[in-house]
Amino acid sequence: MADRPGRVPSDAAARATKLADAALAGDRRALARLLTAVENRTPVAEAALRSLYPRAGRAHLVGITGPPGAGKSTLVAAMLGQLRSAGRSVAVIAVDPSSPITGGALLGDRVRMQAYASDADVFIRSMAARGHAGGLASATGAAASVLDAAGFDLIFIETVGTGQSEVEVAAAADTTVVLEAPEMGDEVQAIKAGLLEVADLVVVNKGDRPGAQRTAAQLRAMLVAVPRAGRDGREGRTAADHDDRPRPKQPDVLVTTASSGEGVPALLSALDRHRATSAGGPSTPARLARAEAQVWAILGDRLRAQLHHGGRSALTGEVMAAVAEHRLDPYSAADRLLRDIVAGGG
Amino acid sequence: MADRPGRVPSDAAARATKLADAALAGDRRALARLLTAVENRTPVAEAALRSLYPRAGRAHLVGITGPPGAGKSTLVAAMLGQLRSAGRSVAVIAVDPSSPITGGALLGDRVRMQAYASDADVFIRSMAARGHAGGLASATGAAASVLDAAGFDLIFIETVGTGQSEVEVAAAADTTVVLEAPEMGDEVQAIKAGLLEVADLVVVNKGDRPGAQRTAAQLRAMLVAVPRAGRDGREGRTAADHDDRPRPKQPDVLVTTASSGEGVPALLSALDRHRATSAGGPSTPARLARAEAQVWAILGDRLRAQLHHGGRSALTGEVMAAVAEHRLDPYSAADRLLRDIVAGGG
Repeated sequence: MADRPGRVPSDAAARATKLADAALAGDRRALARLLTAVENRTPVAEAALRSLYPRAGRAHLVGITGPPGAGKSTLVAAMLGQLRSAGRSVAVIAVDPSSPITGGALLGDRVRMQAYASDADVFIRSMAARGHAGGLASATGAAASVLDAAGFDLIFIETVGTGQSEVEVAAAADTTVVLEAPEMGDEVQAIKAGLLEVADLVVVNKGDRPGAQRTAAQLRAMLVAVPRAGRDGREGRTAADHDDRPRPKQPDVLVTTASSGEGVPALLSALDRHRATSAGGPSTPARLARAEAQVWAILGDRLRAQLHHGGRSALTGEVMAAVAEHRLDPYSAADRLLRDIVAGGG
Repeated sequence: MADRPGRVPSDAAARATKLADAALAGDRRALARLLTAVENRTPVAEAALRSLYPRAGRAHLVGITGPPGAGKSTLVAAMLGQLRSAGRSVAVIAVDPSSPITGGALLGDRVRMQAYASDADVFIRSMAARGHAGGLASATGAAASVLDAAGFDLIFIETVGTGQSEVEVAAAADTTVVLEAPEMGDEVQAIKAGLLEVADLVVVNKGDRPGAQRTAAQLRAMLVAVPRAGRDGREGRTAADHDDRPRPKQPDVLVTTASSGEGVPALLSALDRHRATSAGGPSTPARLARAEAQVWAILGDRLRAQLHHGGRSALTGEVMAAVAEHRLDPYSAADRLLRDIVAGGG
């Protein structure tokens, strides 16, 4: 197994230092380029994160998730407006489900956020996770670290709550807000129980619609029966790792109307309260989960580099083809590849 | 790095042999228990897959994905009915977004599928991916191998097309069907381009609604501009790995009305045609992608076991806490853990 830390090429390191310094000094374009590097997992990203990471750890990371149509983006925009009025700086990472491969952003959000294009204390970023499994969690975590080091007070991470990776990303924030809308269809209703498990706060948005208060009451009743998902910082958790202790406190259920701003101040206070009481420590379960996601992704990259580059790529190709053709089972394949790495000393 | 293949405990191996033999002999309960073992990644699953895997490779794996409400389950049920009439055996893996943690099934689907409870040539399974990233792809791939070895002619893998992992799972089938419904809302429309990239066939369902033919025409126009996503069997692909060659053939756009069965025979013929012309070889890109997903997941498990068990778990805990507290960056953390594994000889 490889043992060459600091394998960042020196030109990448120099570029990274320049970009990181500029980003910390408030250069928005440098920040944007740094985030692109992070998303593409380039050597520049590695060098920059190595130097920026120790400066991060102060921002409040807030995950916002819920089914399509619950009004996540509108609520984020409403919170953003009120936080700016209070003088707090805000970054938004919108994890974009529109393409697992090429990315792209939801047009409406972009238009909505144009209002802040010239505000130095607002930064909005769409992010499409590409590539291998775990990419979403690690890319989002790394992007949050960059924005955190750049000094943003709050970082919203907005994901759609219908994908496994997307829910996990929101759940790894310091405070996770699950959004619901009244009068959702059958399929979406069924999604609720799973989402509620990761909630620190539950918000029924579109509070001006009939049924909003009834939905809130139903959710309060449901929450009594739903355990908090075990967020123990181990990525390899299973259902058996659930934290079966009763929640110290059931998550509050709030009602907002993002379009008018009603209920948003109460939501912001609830976020602050959660941060102060549960999510403020230096080594909380959520922070451990984010750390693990990033370290795991890097370990995976190192392993992948070992297997796909240099003298070993032919063997890897043969082994994978043998598995694809069912001549070799995947366990024997994994053992064979590991044996070769150990024999080669990495 | 570990080099102990065949680390399955002997009692697990014995149980696995018994379950696998029973499942191959047509025992549905044994098959169900085997799939539960696969989902939970137990030692029994490893032993069973080692022995069953060489018997797999004959089934046609068909991925069905699309936004919530497009009618995926209804279409699968309609295909199932017509395939059974033609004497073909069918398994369905419904990847269930209702909970990333505890699982659970969409009630409507379960009720709909009750009709086949006593049909030995139909097997339906809900699957919730839990645990670490990549779990969905590897669990689904492994489950498909078990069902394939058990002799099912077609295996449908149904996922919701709004999550990264879920789309990837459907895209790794031999033939990927992307479902759309006419008259979807704005947010869902935006999802289309990304989904179309993974499509081998596009189906506009709910064909009896006004606008279905217009939606089909729009999709045909869009497809001319959409490249096929690079499905090169490497999990670590990025946007740069796109297959930029023009598609050999644009995917057909079909219109179905799953509720009445209209258009379903044409869809089944199209599936067979795709299999015969593109997806029938022993080592296709989709098969390589599935093989890689499984081997990677096992490599990750082996690495995780190295780091979390035995003498190394204290170091791992310290390193992860240091990253969570921003005293150590994740790259240095990964390098430190790898160094320890190499020094310890695995």
